Amino acid sequence: MKAIVLSSGGVDSTTCLAVAVDKHGADNVISLSVYYGQKHNKELEAARAVADYYKVRHIEFDLKPIFEDSNCSLLMQNDTEIPKESYAEQLNKSEGEPVSTYVPFRNGLFLSVAASIAISNGCKEIYYGAHADDSAGNAYPDCSDEFTKAMWKAINLGSGCGLTIKAPFVNHNKAEVVKRGLELNVPYELTWSCYEGGDKPCGKCGTCIDRQKAFEANGVKDPGIL
Amino acid sequence: MKAIVLSSGGVDSTTCLAVAVDKHGADNVISLSVYYGQKHNKELEAARAVADYYKVRHIEFDLKPIFEDSNCSLLMQNDTEIPKESYAEQLNKSEGEPVSTYVPFRNGLFLSVAASIAISNGCKEIYYGAHADDSAGNAYPDCSDEFTKAMWKAINLGSGCGLTIKAPFVNHNKAEVVKRGLELNVPYELTWSCYEGGDKPCGKCGTCIDRQKAFEANGVKDPGIL
Repeated sequence: MKAIVLSSGGVDSTTCLAVAVDKHGADNVISLSVYYGQKHNKELEAARAVADYYKVRHIEFDLKPIFEDSNCSLLMQNDTEIPKESYAEQLNKSEGEPVSTYVPFRNGLFLSVAASIAISNGCKEIYYGAHADDSAGNAYPDCSDEFTKAMWKAINLGSGCGLTIKAPFVNHNKAEVVKRGLELNVPYELTWSCYEGGDKPCGKCGTCIDRQKAFEANGVKDPGIL
Repeated sequence: MKAIVLSSGGVDSTTCLAVAVDKHGADNVISLSVYYGQKHNKELEAARAVADYYKVRHIEFDLKPIFEDSNCSLLMQNDTEIPKESYAEQLNKSEGEPVSTYVPFRNGLFLSVAASIAISNGCKEIYYGAHADDSAGNAYPDCSDEFTKAMWKAINLGSGCGLTIKAPFVNHNKAEVVKRGLELNVPYELTWSCYEGGDKPCGKCGTCIDRQKAFEANGVKDPGIL
């Protein structure tokens, strides 16, 4: 059976790719990355390096034009500063709205792109690295278990070929993602998480903070920030 | 309230656009068309003409690269002939599979693009012109009521802002779509349905046959084939 994996070059989706390769073999896995207008290209470079490491076919698309009207702080057209605090701290100020780094329906769009590619290439599973820390408090509503199940149903019905979404971490926290990845010897030194595009991760944005905690919880040093 | 309408330049989506403009006013409606690699550009030209007629903001994207691995008979990379028969006749031969003009998860992808644009622009409704004739017998699984409801749920949950899908014709046939459109004085002479890209509609492909029947059922001549 063939599978496609949404790969952002970060910890969660790279671990997902490792799970898919472990189950299906590299020849049966496609890795898919999408540029959506981020302020930097570090994630895409990391996703390419990871695909190269695992020797899987890698596909990339540029969907930046779709997000040009968005005020999301991650996007290059916006000067808005990327918050230098944890998601929990941001949510305290957001009054139930998604955080400023939420990209409008990005994950739903990427899953739909993956569905189109999957059908064309005979894949039966789409791997999606959403995890519980990202959906907590509705920070990223398109990472929740409920959203993922609804999207699974839509893709399953709309594909006409029994396509399914596999989201192995949707009810696990990031520390558990890293735990699974360490068991699978995931090359975390190739991954990139930081929202800023510096030479080294900033260590202060929401995703840097989350990443550090996840490695600490496993008692190991994050090889991505050495 | 603002709304976005998926517009292909055909009968159904143009009627949807008329419904949205009737409800929200032209200033509050965005029309969205996507090129996906069709063998001709007639549909996009029609969608532009319709948006111009209604004086709504029109957005276009080119997502052709996403469908380059597909063997769908509508796409320019495939020599496969577009069937010259009704969907019912095609389904008799397809053994439960979607028809050869099904574009892999196209409508799910377009609805996701619409969701991203809607959130960025403060739209609360996405109009989608799917109707019951297209989903009958699973010809186009991404036109069914069940699919639309699942997609509605995914978009509603994943958007974090209460975004909804309006599919006013999902349980109506094409004749009923045309009936509503005639009441709203839809400029059907501007629309294009035929899968072929000739000077005039071929009159023989699935969508030409469906269109003719829908106008005949309303006792009027189709102004799009004069």
